[in-house]
Amino acid sequence: MAADPFPAPAHPWYVRGNMSKRTSFSKSALDGRSAGLRREFEEKLAALVEIPSVSMDPSRRTDVDKVARQACVLLRELGAHAECIPTAGLPLVLGQLAQDPKFPTVTIYNHLDVQPAEAEEWRTPPFKLVRHGERWHGRGTTDDKGPAVAALLGARLALQDGVRLNFQFLWETEEEIGSPSFQTALRRLADGDKHRAPLRTDSIVVSDTLWPQAGRPAIPYGLRGLVGFCVRLQTGAKDVHSGTTGGAARNPLGELCELINACYDARTGRVKIPGFYDDVRRSSAVERRCLSRAGFSRRRFQLAHGLASVRFPDDARLREAIMIAPTFEVHGLTGGYSGAGIKTIVPHLAEAKLSCRLVPDQRPERMFRLIQGFVRRHCRDAEVIHESSLSPYLVDASGPHLEAAQQAMFEAFGKRPALTREGGSIGAVVTMDRILRAPVVLLGLALPEHGYHAVDENFDWGQARRGIEMFRRYFARLAEIPRRS
Amino acid sequence: MAADPFPAPAHPWYVRGNMSKRTSFSKSALDGRSAGLRREFEEKLAALVEIPSVSMDPSRRTDVDKVARQACVLLRELGAHAECIPTAGLPLVLGQLAQDPKFPTVTIYNHLDVQPAEAEEWRTPPFKLVRHGERWHGRGTTDDKGPAVAALLGARLALQDGVRLNFQFLWETEEEIGSPSFQTALRRLADGDKHRAPLRTDSIVVSDTLWPQAGRPAIPYGLRGLVGFCVRLQTGAKDVHSGTTGGAARNPLGELCELINACYDARTGRVKIPGFYDDVRRSSAVERRCLSRAGFSRRRFQLAHGLASVRFPDDARLREAIMIAPTFEVHGLTGGYSGAGIKTIVPHLAEAKLSCRLVPDQRPERMFRLIQGFVRRHCRDAEVIHESSLSPYLVDASGPHLEAAQQAMFEAFGKRPALTREGGSIGAVVTMDRILRAPVVLLGLALPEHGYHAVDENFDWGQARRGIEMFRRYFARLAEIPRRS
Repeated sequence: MAADPFPAPAHPWYVRGNMSKRTSFSKSALDGRSAGLRREFEEKLAALVEIPSVSMDPSRRTDVDKVARQACVLLRELGAHAECIPTAGLPLVLGQLAQDPKFPTVTIYNHLDVQPAEAEEWRTPPFKLVRHGERWHGRGTTDDKGPAVAALLGARLALQDGVRLNFQFLWETEEEIGSPSFQTALRRLADGDKHRAPLRTDSIVVSDTLWPQAGRPAIPYGLRGLVGFCVRLQTGAKDVHSGTTGGAARNPLGELCELINACYDARTGRVKIPGFYDDVRRSSAVERRCLSRAGFSRRRFQLAHGLASVRFPDDARLREAIMIAPTFEVHGLTGGYSGAGIKTIVPHLAEAKLSCRLVPDQRPERMFRLIQGFVRRHCRDAEVIHESSLSPYLVDASGPHLEAAQQAMFEAFGKRPALTREGGSIGAVVTMDRILRAPVVLLGLALPEHGYHAVDENFDWGQARRGIEMFRRYFARLAEIPRRS
Repeated sequence: MAADPFPAPAHPWYVRGNMSKRTSFSKSALDGRSAGLRREFEEKLAALVEIPSVSMDPSRRTDVDKVARQACVLLRELGAHAECIPTAGLPLVLGQLAQDPKFPTVTIYNHLDVQPAEAEEWRTPPFKLVRHGERWHGRGTTDDKGPAVAALLGARLALQDGVRLNFQFLWETEEEIGSPSFQTALRRLADGDKHRAPLRTDSIVVSDTLWPQAGRPAIPYGLRGLVGFCVRLQTGAKDVHSGTTGGAARNPLGELCELINACYDARTGRVKIPGFYDDVRRSSAVERRCLSRAGFSRRRFQLAHGLASVRFPDDARLREAIMIAPTFEVHGLTGGYSGAGIKTIVPHLAEAKLSCRLVPDQRPERMFRLIQGFVRRHCRDAEVIHESSLSPYLVDASGPHLEAAQQAMFEAFGKRPALTREGGSIGAVVTMDRILRAPVVLLGLALPEHGYHAVDENFDWGQARRGIEMFRRYFARLAEIPRRS
């Protein structure tokens, strides 16, 4: 677990607001070389987006391998040594561009696998990059292929500037399934062997997070964790007739509804499982005040995500429900009839697809055991199947990296970034923190309207162009930070 | 509503057990002509089963029309005048074989539409009649094409015997969707016009019910009703990310689980909606004792329906849960993710597919309003969509028809039939009772192991052969009952 960024009520870095005068926003800087990269950005993005690298779908295995090979092509164009590292699961792409062993090394993490996409729900084919004006549509454009290409081009500009930095790209293809092989693969790289020097880095930058609002740059200092699981209840061999058996036959869907209702209050989101909140770290009033500066507004949140209504009327409660509180979520309930109208059967099998987002200091293993025990006590013949675990995370805010990131984002986007906590989870971040023992910075470019994990996912040139610029400037600043001993 | 068969605590017909001596079971009678009909039965059944007449599926409209035309062919082979009567929905087949206006007329009701069938779940192609020994597999074999062919062949044997009876076949193609056009079409037939004499009948026989147990003949005197509905809750325009929005976004699936849990106790089946049981007619101790003779056993019930466990351990409570009590049932819950594993989205739309089986004197219209009001009070933005309504039914037991049916079944199957109440619903029965005002008898042939509404639906020659014989004998007895004035 990373260091607590709130050791004292008023931790310096988020109350200072210390944007240095000399690097204040300059429009001309932004209209420079990055503006000329649009066609190249589009070509590189298309090369990645048009490979349907859905890690969740075993039948897409070949596409995931293909996207990894395509990534190596892009990295070699930069001048890096690139290779696909086999793992127990899907491959990891490592690209290394070492200029001088005396320079500090930055590791740039992105992922090239994507969420599934059901084509009939999309307005454009999900695995075709389609441009509408300043915006590209396609699965993976914002999560996370667009930010990956932005970071790549930012690195190229920095190299052209003569930056005194070594680059190391870690492009994963298992992020959307909870990075099951990443830890073992990274540990092997960090240990090294007779053919390869141990992987070392001075800092890590991850571009896979969201701003709470367009036009309001933000840097998250926290991520929620996740424990994903299915609860399966089988009461018979086949669906039966609700007239002939109804009343006597158990209804596994009905029983799962009852179980879910016992687990949480769907209206408020409050989890009712005893002990669920025991390990949640209290947030100080200072932290809450700080988060209130992130520009979260109910109205804009609803608009961005297309939500007709939300759980609470006030901004603060909504913001804290995403940034500070853990959740219980129902993703799907299968079993029984799902066609048009009704079919009067009693289902014989039902499965609830569930997860909890976790916050510091909830540990996924302990939370899974807690939930499993509750479910078993509640419904003896229900089976609880573990799906994924990700630890929550807090950035180590003690060094100069976060400040460098704030400066770079300020210069590129013209606004002082807010410090936020992210509602999502990135398993690899915790793993890199533990194994590489280097400061992590989360420099995201996705906006709520980009449709992260949703239909019609998209990315826009405004975020891409300024993002490229942001990375260029961040890398320049990293070069000035002394190497770790 | 039909007359109450329990006007006094000890209604004569079900305590008498009055099987007459002269017609006691004779094995030789069964090994006669009906045994030679096996190939013909199979051919006629195949001609119907191999037309996928799924009334619920609009794309099967042509097949439903086709099955109606095929039914006319079968009826004309018998010598009947047959035609497809157009309705506002799917056609109704009317076959008339009038021998002499002085003879009584029996109306034989069956339905030729079937439940949907998902081929990948079946061991044999659902719309191909496949014989395994004495058993035919295929959608509609037991519900209700097999019994329809048995009644048809029973009529032919009776005609060959010189029975003094007129026959009238009403074969519906909308039973599985709640007979939405049957009432209007039947009313038109009953009114008659300048081209057609008003439809009249002296009695009605319906073969679309089940025995509680193989080898234990049964005649139901009651049917449950049904009110089917969907509850739909939309909280946004698209599924959203459970990290980015989780905690703040409403979860319509979670809220429907909570609503369903507020509606009923899934473990006991007890409905919690206030007023739900108000109109349920109390069963007398005599009736309950009578039903206990139907041979219902938990063990056999579980075996027949492939149920690993049931709601109650004791036979009586299970039997009454099916025969006497109304239900609340969850048929399916759509919305969110339904693929393998989990996908961490918050659904934007969820729909619960629900129904209640009703018992006398619950009226579907009133029950729908009651449920709708409860849902709306509980979850203001949920939409309640009415799907189907069927009234519960009790047979008029005052005339000689039920006794004739008991005798015929006794003679054909060699065992005194139990009188039961059916858990299922047949909307057309209530409609025929109301419009044709003639006594209805329910003479079913389906067994629990036939997989009514389930995968691998089947029918067996034992039930078919004795069923043909039963109908022959029943028609012979009907000819002896004086015409209604």
